[in-house]
Amino acid sequence: MPELRQNRFTKEWVIIATERAKRPKDMVVLRAPRNLPSFDPRCPFCPGNEKSTPPEVLRVAAPGNGSWLVRVVPNKFAALQPEITPRRVVERSHRTVNGFGVHEVVIETPDHSQATALMSDAQVASVFRALKARCSDLSLDSRIANVTIFKNHGMDAGTSLEHPHSQLIATPVISSQVRSRLYEALRHYDEFGECIFCSAVDEELQDKSRLVVVTDHFVALQPFASYTPFCTHIYPRRHMANFADIGGEEITDLAHVLRLVLAKLYYGLHDPDFNFAIRSAPAECSGVKYYHWYVSIIPRLTRVAGFELGSGMYINTVLPEAAAEFLREVDVESAAAPDKPQLIAAAAEPGARH
Amino acid sequence: MPELRQNRFTKEWVIIATERAKRPKDMVVLRAPRNLPSFDPRCPFCPGNEKSTPPEVLRVAAPGNGSWLVRVVPNKFAALQPEITPRRVVERSHRTVNGFGVHEVVIETPDHSQATALMSDAQVASVFRALKARCSDLSLDSRIANVTIFKNHGMDAGTSLEHPHSQLIATPVISSQVRSRLYEALRHYDEFGECIFCSAVDEELQDKSRLVVVTDHFVALQPFASYTPFCTHIYPRRHMANFADIGGEEITDLAHVLRLVLAKLYYGLHDPDFNFAIRSAPAECSGVKYYHWYVSIIPRLTRVAGFELGSGMYINTVLPEAAAEFLREVDVESAAAPDKPQLIAAAAEPGARH
Repeated sequence: MPELRQNRFTKEWVIIATERAKRPKDMVVLRAPRNLPSFDPRCPFCPGNEKSTPPEVLRVAAPGNGSWLVRVVPNKFAALQPEITPRRVVERSHRTVNGFGVHEVVIETPDHSQATALMSDAQVASVFRALKARCSDLSLDSRIANVTIFKNHGMDAGTSLEHPHSQLIATPVISSQVRSRLYEALRHYDEFGECIFCSAVDEELQDKSRLVVVTDHFVALQPFASYTPFCTHIYPRRHMANFADIGGEEITDLAHVLRLVLAKLYYGLHDPDFNFAIRSAPAECSGVKYYHWYVSIIPRLTRVAGFELGSGMYINTVLPEAAAEFLREVDVESAAAPDKPQLIAAAAEPGARH
Repeated sequence: MPELRQNRFTKEWVIIATERAKRPKDMVVLRAPRNLPSFDPRCPFCPGNEKSTPPEVLRVAAPGNGSWLVRVVPNKFAALQPEITPRRVVERSHRTVNGFGVHEVVIETPDHSQATALMSDAQVASVFRALKARCSDLSLDSRIANVTIFKNHGMDAGTSLEHPHSQLIATPVISSQVRSRLYEALRHYDEFGECIFCSAVDEELQDKSRLVVVTDHFVALQPFASYTPFCTHIYPRRHMANFADIGGEEITDLAHVLRLVLAKLYYGLHDPDFNFAIRSAPAECSGVKYYHWYVSIIPRLTRVAGFELGSGMYINTVLPEAAAEFLREVDVESAAAPDKPQLIAAAAEPGARH
């Protein structure tokens, strides 16, 4: 029987459409593997083309030689501009702010072909350290209200450049998703005296059915009212409202958990396009007891249609508990072993497809 | 300079990214025209295949012979089931309702190939009369809280069957989009003693820059804080909270306005994939002074990426005022005249593309 489930952080309802249900393995991506060269002379993010990007904001140097592991640069096609002073205009019913903001790109690796899922944990940790440093820096700017960190992997996820990169956009207003979550979380705190996210993580750890990866510092799980198949959240186990408050050991662990979840999606579903985003409290709320940052990973396996756009309700055809079980069972180490047939290789042969 | 604009009905911010700006004509769809036969023997919605669908809920008969103009049938792959009694379960933090609901398909025409944009106004009016009748009927069912009417046109808009059809899903809960709009609209009414939608329509009629089509009963316009290029809203000029309260003359007019807007998109942008949805108050709110139903048409010209998914803020690369001017200038009658070169025909020749 289908079931409606409510997202407790937003009060949004989701239809878990079990009558239309797909088995998790029905969601495996049917397309040829991405075959990217490790260096593309036309790519502005490849080593040697550093002059194609605006001047670096931050560089993680490779040990020894003069090369780099990670670069952060302003987005050449920025959605917002950092040079202007934000000015709010209230005119009749219209509310506008001129386009002040910061839009940066984090080039995650010099290797054009390397999916985040296949990087070393150490490389991913360098990316997160760079993101933390940029968030901390930007939070000192009183013009900035909110920083959104996100990644687009693949065409269906909206990427235009294939070289692995993530982005951040700092805005002079709080994003609606963070605002609505702050609001509901504050109401919960007011009623129960606890962080709604900490309480949800505790419940999930007891229930176990939606867990994907659990480490000392993080829990990766399928949300109870997941909007889309295999949407995965990663929560820090320590209460923290703002991503920039993450500690050194926690960054190492987050890098491992994120990379492992992405590798499970990569081998289990054959390198799906995906987005991830960090939903962090604004820096000014960094000490609050009611909000808790987390990473949301959204594989782009389905299309949003008129019902979702017109109602805000999503129809999810994969049971979150089945998705969690499927991901738990993906054995990344044996899939990655060079002597074993890789799932991703099997996908390239039409005969081997489901 | 880019600009942030706030949607006054939801308080969501949109980035109007003029630095990345596209001219409206840059958004013209570059693909071969859909070439559908007017009858497809395998299509369950084509005449003669009536037995392929579940039994009819409603039929608009063609005058004279035994054929039909419009059929409404239960969705064979329904997301929700009508036979069960909705039961809400509150268990620790989880809120669920078993999958009660009604999911119906409105087959808009017997002609497999006929886009809504190219139908007669009278045919579209028959579709809206059928939708109104179904909404009115379903509102008598106390188990139903909310009816969402929507349409998917084209693969990018999530359709699986090409035969022109729209759908409705009735749910035992209020959709989050309607709920948040009800909430903001009530706050506005409480403060200003007026319907926020009526007031917005009045302002737009004075301003004129975002208007697309104005008739006796309806106003079609580009929203000030439009999320995506060419998103078009159609508001009834008479205050009405619930779509099912629409009058006979208003239905005729709405059919004309919707068809005209769709035709402007069809000829101006070369038959883009699109969704539309009606955001109506629940039937129980049908007399309220603070809410106002409207149609939202969303051409699927861009992809949602990680920033939008992670923040709820959209980046729109086409200025709503430029989109409105472009659509006002699309001359549907001369584009449709058989002796004139049609824009859509020009799109089929690569040499004629922008």
